[in-house]
Amino acid sequence: MNLKRLIPTAAALTVLPMAALAQDAAPGFDEIGPYIMTTLLFCMAGFLVFFMAAGFAMLEGGLVRSKNVTMQMTKNIALFSIAAIMYWLVGFNTMYPGDFNGYFAIGGQTVLDPVGVAAADAALDYASVGSDFFFQLVFVAATASIVSGAVAERIKLWPFLIFVVVLTGILYPISGSWQWGGGWLSGSNLALATLGTVILWLGWFGCNGGAQLAMGTVGDVSDVSRIFANTNMAAAAGAVTALILSQILYKKPDLTMVLNGALAGLVSITAEPLAPTLFGALWIGAVGGIIVVLTIPMLDKFKIDDVVGAIPVHLFAGIWGTIAVVFYNSDASLITQLTGIVAYGVFTFVASLIVWFILKAAMGIRVGEEEEISGLDMSEMGMEAYPDFSKG
Amino acid sequence: MNLKRLIPTAAALTVLPMAALAQDAAPGFDEIGPYIMTTLLFCMAGFLVFFMAAGFAMLEGGLVRSKNVTMQMTKNIALFSIAAIMYWLVGFNTMYPGDFNGYFAIGGQTVLDPVGVAAADAALDYASVGSDFFFQLVFVAATASIVSGAVAERIKLWPFLIFVVVLTGILYPISGSWQWGGGWLSGSNLALATLGTVILWLGWFGCNGGAQLAMGTVGDVSDVSRIFANTNMAAAAGAVTALILSQILYKKPDLTMVLNGALAGLVSITAEPLAPTLFGALWIGAVGGIIVVLTIPMLDKFKIDDVVGAIPVHLFAGIWGTIAVVFYNSDASLITQLTGIVAYGVFTFVASLIVWFILKAAMGIRVGEEEEISGLDMSEMGMEAYPDFSKG
Amino acid sequence: MNLKRLIPTAAALTVLPMAALAQDAAPGFDEIGPYIMTTLLFCMAGFLVFFMAAGFAMLEGGLVRSKNVTMQMTKNIALFSIAAIMYWLVGFNTMYPGDFNGYFAIGGQTVLDPVGVAAADAALDYASVGSDFFFQLVFVAATASIVSGAVAERIKLWPFLIFVVVLTGILYPISGSWQWGGGWLSGSNLALATLGTVILWLGWFGCNGGAQLAMGTVGDVSDVSRIFANTNMAAAAGAVTALILSQILYKKPDLTMVLNGALAGLVSITAEPLAPTLFGALWIGAVGGIIVVLTIPMLDKFKIDDVVGAIPVHLFAGIWGTIAVVFYNSDASLITQLTGIVAYGVFTFVASLIVWFILKAAMGIRVGEEEEISGLDMSEMGMEAYPDFSKG
Repeated sequence: MNLKRLIPTAAALTVLPMAALAQDAAPGFDEIGPYIMTTLLFCMAGFLVFFMAAGFAMLEGGLVRSKNVTMQMTKNIALFSIAAIMYWLVGFNTMYPGDFNGYFAIGGQTVLDPVGVAAADAALDYASVGSDFFFQLVFVAATASIVSGAVAERIKLWPFLIFVVVLTGILYPISGSWQWGGGWLSGSNLALATLGTVILWLGWFGCNGGAQLAMGTVGDVSDVSRIFANTNMAAAAGAVTALILSQILYKKPDLTMVLNGALAGLVSITAEPLAPTLFGALWIGAVGGIIVVLTIPMLDKFKIDDVVGAIPVHLFAGIWGTIAVVFYNSDASLITQLTGIVAYGVFTFVASLIVWFILKAAMGIRVGEEEEISGLDMSEMGMEAYPDFSKG
Repeated sequence: MNLKRLIPTAAALTVLPMAALAQDAAPGFDEIGPYIMTTLLFCMAGFLVFFMAAGFAMLEGGLVRSKNVTMQMTKNIALFSIAAIMYWLVGFNTMYPGDFNGYFAIGGQTVLDPVGVAAADAALDYASVGSDFFFQLVFVAATASIVSGAVAERIKLWPFLIFVVVLTGILYPISGSWQWGGGWLSGSNLALATLGTVILWLGWFGCNGGAQLAMGTVGDVSDVSRIFANTNMAAAAGAVTALILSQILYKKPDLTMVLNGALAGLVSITAEPLAPTLFGALWIGAVGGIIVVLTIPMLDKFKIDDVVGAIPVHLFAGIWGTIAVVFYNSDASLITQLTGIVAYGVFTFVASLIVWFILKAAMGIRVGEEEEISGLDMSEMGMEAYPDFSKG
Repeated sequence: MNLKRLIPTAAALTVLPMAALAQDAAPGFDEIGPYIMTTLLFCMAGFLVFFMAAGFAMLEGGLVRSKNVTMQMTKNIALFSIAAIMYWLVGFNTMYPGDFNGYFAIGGQTVLDPVGVAAADAALDYASVGSDFFFQLVFVAATASIVSGAVAERIKLWPFLIFVVVLTGILYPISGSWQWGGGWLSGSNLALATLGTVILWLGWFGCNGGAQLAMGTVGDVSDVSRIFANTNMAAAAGAVTALILSQILYKKPDLTMVLNGALAGLVSITAEPLAPTLFGALWIGAVGGIIVVLTIPMLDKFKIDDVVGAIPVHLFAGIWGTIAVVFYNSDASLITQLTGIVAYGVFTFVASLIVWFILKAAMGIRVGEEEEISGLDMSEMGMEAYPDFSKG
């Protein structure tokens, strides 16, 4: 904010009285430009991240078996809607320091800027509350979508949705961080899964670019586009690495490995998408791709259930990305990064465990073996996703 | 526009001759900033609304039976294309007061700004003609898409397209308002239907946000983001309400109810997306969700055909939203809102009835019973959407 | 850039010392506004073009037979990723005159602006390197996607990917131009194909609008929106023309013709999307639609293989569009346009032929007849796209 710049000296006021008067009424673009541009960044990035709802839904819908597609779709639409309500109710003000009341507490409802807010009443050095809230909200919803993937095909609807209430209202705003999970590894429609991956890739531009939190100066807008270029490079490197490695190891290219490689590349670069060079983004993403290809069969060998097994895969890429920050960001040290990983990891693990434990005791969380075989769509939903096609 | 602001007094001109000269040659961002930002708003919002074409196509393609998918896709691509041509030919200038010639008349062709228009020749207090035309046009096409859903599986191709010609060229520009229709209630691929709903939800940000018609001031850009937050909340509330209510009433969560609940929430908030608080958006959207879940089976009970039956569902949510305006917008009264509903309703109903009556007499509009059973794809198109899959 | 405008005379400096000092520290929106807006244009347009990756994948996935879907998805994800890496490695600096070293040479790696670049070090009269690189890159990837469609169902994975390496690293940056190919004409899921077409249509706004390369003045932003309106009109006209013509010629509306008509309209307007009036865009696009409907069966009659046959279809529309430039752009002459067509055509044809010839000799490029019948997914991938559905 360069408010000073527009406040002329007393001498100037005498010379330019009309300009001075007009300035009182309507500030110029030097003052309001950054506010408008940053608000625009939140809206644009928010749309991209919002569209990840479709990405997760198609990816998961494409990889679960047909008999569970309706359930998976229902979970995805419902979790987004619940996230929106809970984040408004308590999440935004719990997470945000702006309204933080000095000691730790669960915040209250989000209040938007009044209609037609005057420049004098707006946060001219930041952005409108509506755009900030919207951007943060779609982030939270994306997190919950990742969890829905990790527990696909096994979890009951209502316990899952209650977990979403706690996650988006309390856990996420407290940890204020992504819980990398996943589990996209057994499955029925690879065209939809590919669509989902491309949409997620697109949405990731919104995640990482929007996190710059400003677009109103040369440095900021240049950084935002630098982030886009790096994010794209990491995803590309993860996909190509997974393709080559699956060809070498299994003598066949493996599409699900390629899709997961792209996602692992995206996960790997997300902890620090700004500082690396393009070559940095390339090898950080490539290591993410290697991790995916090597870890998935390793977990199978240890007979770890898909549901639990898939999470470490994405967790590993996330941990790798967090560690990789030290290579390009001199403010980060290996100790701080590892401390961060442990702190967030322990918090998320313990808090989630408590919630799931309570839900399990109260209503059961996992569907029975028989229901798992017949599919959730008939047992829980009474509806099939593709009723017109006979099943092979 | 703050033209005055940049015109210095005679005294200032003497002191700052170079600045004054430069201003003649190229106006600063204080003058052109709002024009650029509002033009950008129309383009961005226009892209989101344009993408609703994919949303409607996937939603309808996902809910009609497989045997009618090719027809439904053809209708959607064709109607968008026809809308684009008709709106250029007469619609834009019929609807828009700017070129209105004093008495009621069908307008002429749209003329864009010349290439590289000078600031002096541009509508600096608004936006470029191209962006305005594009935004209005995708709106019109979205309207026609809703009609295509309402008459899915029953209407012949060419009578439908002729109706689109009249609707987008004359009826819509005259009423200048949405005709809420629908009919998304029997069906073959719920993954596509979910994709369609998410795309529509995304596109709705464009509809409601773009309708602010300005983004170049603090108040305007803040209002645009306020609209995004409210629109999102109403959709979320509609979906969650439909989910809970369908669980209570039918003991099973119902995905099509949830999808329709989200859409009903979006419809409900559209009449006034700016004035309500987030809590206002929540309960207005929730009532929309309740209306959907209660009305669909009620219409079935009265043995009203789906095609006619579905329209009231969306009509009810639209009427509800129009009435709900009075709760948060003090400029609106119940009388004006009801008058508006009746006026638009009667005009749309009567005008549509006349067009359909003429089409029915001239060429028939509804496919025969036998063709309805065998599906429109074979009888009207000679082509199936999923030829590689055997039908169950 | 209006640097002069902000440099007051010596007299003014005496009167306004504070403002002058502040300006040194932080330039105003008059200077940085165009840079921010043009960077934003590249990012926005880049997202739209990026999303064409999903468009091509869905279009091709929807039109190839089910037995080749997994292969087609793999090719599309892999080619995009390879394009990203190769364009960074050599392509961007080979293509771009900015770093051109006086004589023809293959360029080196792309280097982004430093983090938080100062206004004084940025290309204030253009845009950030990151946004420019990102936008050019997604363009290159889109080109490679077109090739993947042209050789669908027949080409082996690895020779294709090696061709992509050469195309995106060397051939494309040298010719710096689109190689119109295609081949979207035999197939399994028309809902996905429609989704793909709509996404491509959306992405084309990014292609043509972004090519304006500036959005920071009234003339530029108005031109960008003029381009959007024209691009949309050409696609609409191509689709409607193909619909009507296929009804007249074959007595049935043909969805694949309509989708290809829209794409032909887009191809036709791309050589000159700015200069034509809306009516110009309409008839140029309509001729594109006519070309598609008339050429496809003609090629069949001459027993030209689909793979080779499909390319001329899109080539014809591209040639038509290049010729049509002369009708609205007085700077273009028929001779220059024809010279351009021949020059680019010969270069692309010869260069591609050499690469394919080497690949054929070295490792073979076309799958065997038996593998073509059983489908690439089982023979090359060992994986099916829709394992849960029995095949008809």
